[in-house]
Amino acid sequence: MALLRSWVESANGADCPFPLNNLPYGVFSTTGTAPRCGAAIGDMIVDLAACEALGLLDAGGTFSQPQLNGFMALGRAEWDRVRARLTELLAENSGTQLPLVPMAKAQMHLPIRVTGFTDFYASKNHAFNVGVLFRGPENALPPQWTHMPIGYNGRASSVVVSGTPIRRPMGQIRGEAGPDWAPCRRLDLELELGAIVGADSTMGERVSVEKAEAMIFGYVLLNDWSARDIQAWEYQPLGPFQAKALGTTIGAWVVTQAALEPFRSPGAERVNPLLPYLQEARPGFYDLQVGWTMNGQVMGRTNYNVMYYSSAQQLAHHSSSGCPLRVGDLLGSGTISGPTRDATGALLEMTEGGKTPVMVNGAPRTFIEDGDEIDLFAHARGDGYCIGFGPCTGKILPAKP
Amino acid sequence: MALLRSWVESANGADCPFPLNNLPYGVFSTTGTAPRCGAAIGDMIVDLAACEALGLLDAGGTFSQPQLNGFMALGRAEWDRVRARLTELLAENSGTQLPLVPMAKAQMHLPIRVTGFTDFYASKNHAFNVGVLFRGPENALPPQWTHMPIGYNGRASSVVVSGTPIRRPMGQIRGEAGPDWAPCRRLDLELELGAIVGADSTMGERVSVEKAEAMIFGYVLLNDWSARDIQAWEYQPLGPFQAKALGTTIGAWVVTQAALEPFRSPGAERVNPLLPYLQEARPGFYDLQVGWTMNGQVMGRTNYNVMYYSSAQQLAHHSSSGCPLRVGDLLGSGTISGPTRDATGALLEMTEGGKTPVMVNGAPRTFIEDGDEIDLFAHARGDGYCIGFGPCTGKILPAKP
Repeated sequence: MALLRSWVESANGADCPFPLNNLPYGVFSTTGTAPRCGAAIGDMIVDLAACEALGLLDAGGTFSQPQLNGFMALGRAEWDRVRARLTELLAENSGTQLPLVPMAKAQMHLPIRVTGFTDFYASKNHAFNVGVLFRGPENALPPQWTHMPIGYNGRASSVVVSGTPIRRPMGQIRGEAGPDWAPCRRLDLELELGAIVGADSTMGERVSVEKAEAMIFGYVLLNDWSARDIQAWEYQPLGPFQAKALGTTIGAWVVTQAALEPFRSPGAERVNPLLPYLQEARPGFYDLQVGWTMNGQVMGRTNYNVMYYSSAQQLAHHSSSGCPLRVGDLLGSGTISGPTRDATGALLEMTEGGKTPVMVNGAPRTFIEDGDEIDLFAHARGDGYCIGFGPCTGKILPAKP
Repeated sequence: MALLRSWVESANGADCPFPLNNLPYGVFSTTGTAPRCGAAIGDMIVDLAACEALGLLDAGGTFSQPQLNGFMALGRAEWDRVRARLTELLAENSGTQLPLVPMAKAQMHLPIRVTGFTDFYASKNHAFNVGVLFRGPENALPPQWTHMPIGYNGRASSVVVSGTPIRRPMGQIRGEAGPDWAPCRRLDLELELGAIVGADSTMGERVSVEKAEAMIFGYVLLNDWSARDIQAWEYQPLGPFQAKALGTTIGAWVVTQAALEPFRSPGAERVNPLLPYLQEARPGFYDLQVGWTMNGQVMGRTNYNVMYYSSAQQLAHHSSSGCPLRVGDLLGSGTISGPTRDATGALLEMTEGGKTPVMVNGAPRTFIEDGDEIDLFAHARGDGYCIGFGPCTGKILPAKP
């Protein structure tokens, strides 16, 4: 697919993350105005609430809400219709003017009301690397790992938008004689993609992989901040809890499935056939360069297509017991790690559990220190254009003892 | 404390679960009317929305909402004021008439919009018994168990009100060569008390045990249905997921902390001192008889005061990383099991992992079969009165292959 040119000139550069081909949705406000829905184009935001008020677009008034849940609940046919209309209105020769706000003057908000947050574990490299560190090489990959997308429920209330500072947590950490109560000493990031569920399913009914894919509205970058020392002490037998509740940062821009469609890609090679309820008729991954920086330095870089389970497979598994999915559910892909150290999406892996420091701006580092800023990035490259996700950043504040 | 007599005669019997001393809140509707808030008194429901409309009570209009979240968000001072006013209006010589609806004509709804569901693991007997079955006697009690209330995030969307049928889940179950896809063969209940959080906390701020207690609005009975065979295959290393997502049943009536205050009790004896952030100034448990029936036969019976961690301690720990709590969060106590088999709150323990059947209405049984109905009960005994919770019941429908 080639670049779609827009009358918003800044959207036409080959490296602009937000060309007309992208049109991600978000929630923004400007000084003295209420949060409402917008779409990114070049370095501007289309004020979708104002477009509705002017009669240029119709989304049932949902764009004046302070999150995308109302719009998502309208259903896929409306997502497609509104996207087509916006593409028409923003095209080079549309002859229309739209209410635009410069990104530089906007404050971004959490794009969705997070109904539920589920985090998966779908990179085989990551699962193996972390398994070795937590349980040794013999028990590294759990026996069910190649048969199901392992996941756990996270905490929806601690999901925040890119730019929100994250406080280093206090917690129980294994000590000489029982646990210490101390600030986390092994604070880490997790580079993930988050799938946003845009439709409800019915309790007691399973969702097929095909239907699951149709329920996914779009994707955001997601950093699942992790306190590794708190995790090591608390996580057996019921899974991570406070180690993952200090905060989860998501990007402000929701890139739609439609924008990613040209980049569809197979994922990692299968070790064994999947049970029928998890089989996909077509590849459910995307050729998407992803990575992360620490204080501006690129640290890890890989591709989303290293993953073993797609978001649609994760959603199908999530519903396999009859568990209902809801508009606004957020499904974390799991840490995206490639096979080499410089392709890993967490410091735990990159530093081999803190044993092998990495150089950051000339100094050796293992885990995240106070004041450090972590940012994630993702982009897909088309013919003369780029689909970007915008920043997913967070700076660490010192613990409050 | 003695019975408070009401002009609603059915509330004055010594065995009535809903005397004036209790006044639990719920959400109900009658044919052709919208769900709204009510309070139980004897065999009647006070229509609190109608009371507000008549000017008899003031709760800012929140009682006409279809869940208690709006009322809870008003804060503890309002909870106390409204309770005092209701007690006055319903007292024997109040001389007032209130709009009442017979319970027999009402349909009960989920009393709260469940913002988050967290399940704990706070009975030492249960943790040990289940630990032996899943991991053997040497690794039964995890090393951190006596230092922290272990918990995990459950799935809020599958919480349903008492009386909702529960469908037996399909799932992956360990087989000879890889997993089978089959209906759950080891379906179980878990007898729990659920604490309902009635106030928000701030992200990045810890909540003390004392403040945590003040944030708890009340308690419901809670049955955390569990698919033990799905659980055994899936739960390592990230905890239970689909095994616990088929449904969680809660009672329709929220018994307030105020009603339980006269029954405050110490819990289980401490094995070691707790870290300061978990220490309670006064006992946070209640002398509350709890138990469960299967198809009408009493199976297990124990007391909530066998527990090791109170709901306030669980909430404090939940916030220890800075995780914000929200109005409408539901905290499951964990299975309440006493020291003997007939005091256990799950079939897994009662049948020793299915090896020792129990007799139910004359026939040997291990796990739950299709058509079985499980009900939970709880009551505290005062001087000539009883604080009951109402039913917490669910009937199992066959799996949909």
